[in-house]
Formats: sequence, C-alpha cells, structure tokens
Amino acid sequence: MTTQELVAQIHKKQSFLCIGLDTDLEKIPAFLLEEEDPIFAFNKAIIDATHDLCVSYKPNIAFYEAYGVQGWSALRKTIKYLNKEYPEIFTIADAKRGDIGNTSTRYAKAFFEDLNFDSITIAPYMGRDSVEPFLQFKDKHTILLALTSNQGAFDFQIKKVDGNELYKEVLSVSTTYEGAENLMYVVGATKAEYLKEIREIVPESFLLVPGVGAQGGSLEDVCKYGMTKGVGLLINSSRGIIYASNQEDFASAARINAKKLQVSMEKELERLN
Amino acid sequence: MTTQELVAQIHKKQSFLCIGLDTDLEKIPAFLLEEEDPIFAFNKAIIDATHDLCVSYKPNIAFYEAYGVQGWSALRKTIKYLNKEYPEIFTIADAKRGDIGNTSTRYAKAFFEDLNFDSITIAPYMGRDSVEPFLQFKDKHTILLALTSNQGAFDFQIKKVDGNELYKEVLSVSTTYEGAENLMYVVGATKAEYLKEIREIVPESFLLVPGVGAQGGSLEDVCKYGMTKGVGLLINSSRGIIYASNQEDFASAARINAKKLQVSMEKELERLN
Repeated sequence: MTTQELVAQIHKKQSFLCIGLDTDLEKIPAFLLEEEDPIFAFNKAIIDATHDLCVSYKPNIAFYEAYGVQGWSALRKTIKYLNKEYPEIFTIADAKRGDIGNTSTRYAKAFFEDLNFDSITIAPYMGRDSVEPFLQFKDKHTILLALTSNQGAFDFQIKKVDGNELYKEVLSVSTTYEGAENLMYVVGATKAEYLKEIREIVPESFLLVPGVGAQGGSLEDVCKYGMTKGVGLLINSSRGIIYASNQEDFASAARINAKKLQVSMEKELERLN
Repeated sequence: MTTQELVAQIHKKQSFLCIGLDTDLEKIPAFLLEEEDPIFAFNKAIIDATHDLCVSYKPNIAFYEAYGVQGWSALRKTIKYLNKEYPEIFTIADAKRGDIGNTSTRYAKAFFEDLNFDSITIAPYMGRDSVEPFLQFKDKHTILLALTSNQGAFDFQIKKVDGNELYKEVLSVSTTYEGAENLMYVVGATKAEYLKEIREIVPESFLLVPGVGAQGGSLEDVCKYGMTKGVGLLINSSRGIIYASNQEDFASAARINAKKLQVSMEKELERLN
C-alpha cells in the first residue's frame, strides 16, 4: 500500500486508528476456547466489528510466536483474512526485528512477501545494514523504533549521544538510509511534548503512536504537536479496544471503544481543513 | 543449563565453539531438497557430524521464520532433536527480540519453555523492562546485543553517550538489571581490541563472539583480550562450517572445518592451565 492510499483511507474513514491484535488466550472470552482456532476466531470477530472505524491492524508477533506452530498458523489466517476481506486496511507486523543484511532480507521476505504485511516494526540498534534491506521493497513500510512508551526507554533512548538524545540520532541518521522514503517511526505518546522536536527532524513521516489512553498520553496533545498536512499519524490502541469485554458481547464492546476513538479523531482531523 | 555446566562441557570437549544453524534452502546441497523436511535433514546431518567438536548450536530464527509454518516446524524438530540426543549442548535462539514487559514474557515463554532453548539473543534498545522478563527464568540465559560485528554498528553503538560509547553504556546499565547474573553479551570479534575495556565492565560474563574467520576477527586476539578464568567465551561460526561443501560430503566437510577451530581453541584453552 502506498502512503497516499493510507492517507486517502484516513480521510474516507475519518480515522487514523490502528488496533493492536495482542491476542492472548488467557484474556479472550472463555467460550472462544472451544473453537478450533480460538486466536483466529477472536481476531476475525474483532476485525469484522471494527474495520470501518480504523485504518490499520497491528498483530504483535510475540503473542503468536508464544503459541508456536498453532500461533503462527493463526497469524497467517488473520493476515490472509485481512488481505482478502479488507484490502484497504494497512497491516503492521509488530515484530521489532533487527539483524544483519542477509538475515534482515529473510525477515523482510517472511513478513512482506510470504505473509504480505504492508509494514513491519524494526529495532534500530544494529544500524544501517540491518534496516536498509527492508527499505528496498516497493510500497512496503518499515517502522523504526525511535522513542518507545515504556519505562525502559529512559535507559538508552533519551540519553545524549554527541549532544543529542539517542532517539533523535536514530531519527536523523535513518533519514540518510537508502530507501528512507519508506520509513515510519514508533514514537510513544507518553512524551507528546517531544513531538514538536521530532517533527523538526522528520517533518512529513508517518508516526505510529502507542500509549494513548491506557498508558497515559492525550490524543489532543499528540495531534497538536505531531499532525502534518498529510496527517502523518497512526494512533494505536490494543487492550483498551480488544479486551473491552470478556463476555459474549466482546466484539460489540470493542466496537463501542473504537468508535469513541474514531469520533475524537474525526474532530482532530478538522485541523486540516 | 547452568553456566557451570557450560564451562564443564568446554573443558571436556576442549572447545568453546558455537555453530550457527543459518539454514538456507538456497545454499544447502540440492539433493536434500527431495527430503520431506530439507531444513531439518540438513541440521540433523550437521549436528550429528559436529556435536563432539562444539558446545553450542545457534539457529538464527530469521531463517526459519522466512519459511513460515514449515520453517517453524523445522526449528521445533531441530531443538527437540538437540535436547533429546545431545542434552549437554547449550542451545541459543538467535532471535534478537526486544519488546515491552508483558510481551517480552511471551517471547521468553516461547523460546525458554515451549521450545526449551537454554538462551536467547535480545536487543537492548527498549531498556530494562524489555530485558528483565527474560532474566527471571532459572538456568536460562539472555544474550544482550552490545557490540555487533556489522558495519551498521558504527551508526549508534560506538557513539558516545554521556561520554561513554553506547555499547559500554548498555553493558554497564544492564549489570543493574534484576537477574543480571543470567546475562551474556554479543560482542563482535572485528573489534577484538575493544575486549579489554569490555572486560573492565563485565569481567566474568560469557561473551558470544561472532565474526571470527569470515568476518575478519582473530581467534588469538579474542582469547588474549576476552578469555576469563571461567573461559567466558563462545565463538560462533556459521557459514564457514555449515556451507563448507554443498555436495554429498557436506557433513564431513563441516566436521573438518569445525575440527580446525576446535584444535585452535584447545590451544587457546592452555592459557588457563
């Protein structure tokens, strides 16, 4: 999917919501465990109930890997279902991978070709030759971890590197990578005030923003500092939507919470008029 | 496996060799492609031919993930085979994972419990709460990326953070993590001269060292600067061993190259007498 197509979807749906499919057998409604593939059954119900309110789904790969071959198979069914039924959806493999050249190419093929995701999250620690292999795929997007929303972000990301915070160094060095036009960035919403400076380094890039709501960030602040003329934001919510209820009504409860966010986003999009 | 057991194996076999199982269908002998599971068939032959010359095997997970469910199944067969036939082997899941708390626990369970690996490689970028969940598993080891052997390591790892190179900051901050006694570190051999300073920060920790041979590092230098009384080194070789030949003799050719390294290592271990 091209960035232009993503932006068009955002305007059409009046939403820049990404729903995180962090599907956990211990948290989904118990009655689903009787299904042949409970993970896929849960995902399918959530997707069917929310697809018109969001522009993106983001399975966190850890949750699938934890269930081995069964989890991997559920992931495959989920992405195939999305690609077939809702091809307008921007799909994100939240894998946080990062390895050397040849190995990165393997990961890129696994997620971009075999599973046909539109994008993948990547850790920056190993530098240029661990990222560039992902950037060579046409109309595929690499979402680099810059500033994450967890407490551990303080360990290294905000430390000064040659006078500049490490996450800013990641942003600015990565803009020199070959294929940098295919980069997006993860920026935690718990630090919305940082978005102003981030926009000085990457004025147009899409930012994937976790941590709005449950983790404490404000949608209004994120949009105030982070929105561009081309929107430039995907706001992720996972648990707040998919675990809105663990009863029979889980899908409609998820829809209600997704709708609340979509309505707030519609209001924020008025900034662009 | 405990560190003491690993050290005992090193002395018994007179080897601290780790063999990387970067199994690639495009590189293995063509006649194996007729097997029902070519990846596992290749791994099994390599393992049977070399297990007495090394103390560790390290499948790079990317190579398995690239083949989807089939690859995941081959990985599972490989680790089960190792655990059953050669339980004295220290197994490393080269996954370079890194995610937030709850998600890290998922990955830890997948690799430590479901697949029963002895250890996993982890990226440090997300800090404490992305690493500590792995450190809570008894007799399991977390191998943190510190200084990698690729060109991209220069992008961030050797930049100065508060006056200290980032990789040194990673080493020293990580020693404060809860469960730090279960940490090991990846340190590329292309920078053997750095090992002296690294040993000032982590004097006893095991270091997993890639990049000896093909990538240019010298075994002698690595041992000179990096070896401790408790050995403290695992030297990895992947392609130089497993792709020594792509003909019928691939396993015996792998053995010949593994033997060369083991003989050199035997000589280096004399330092400890």
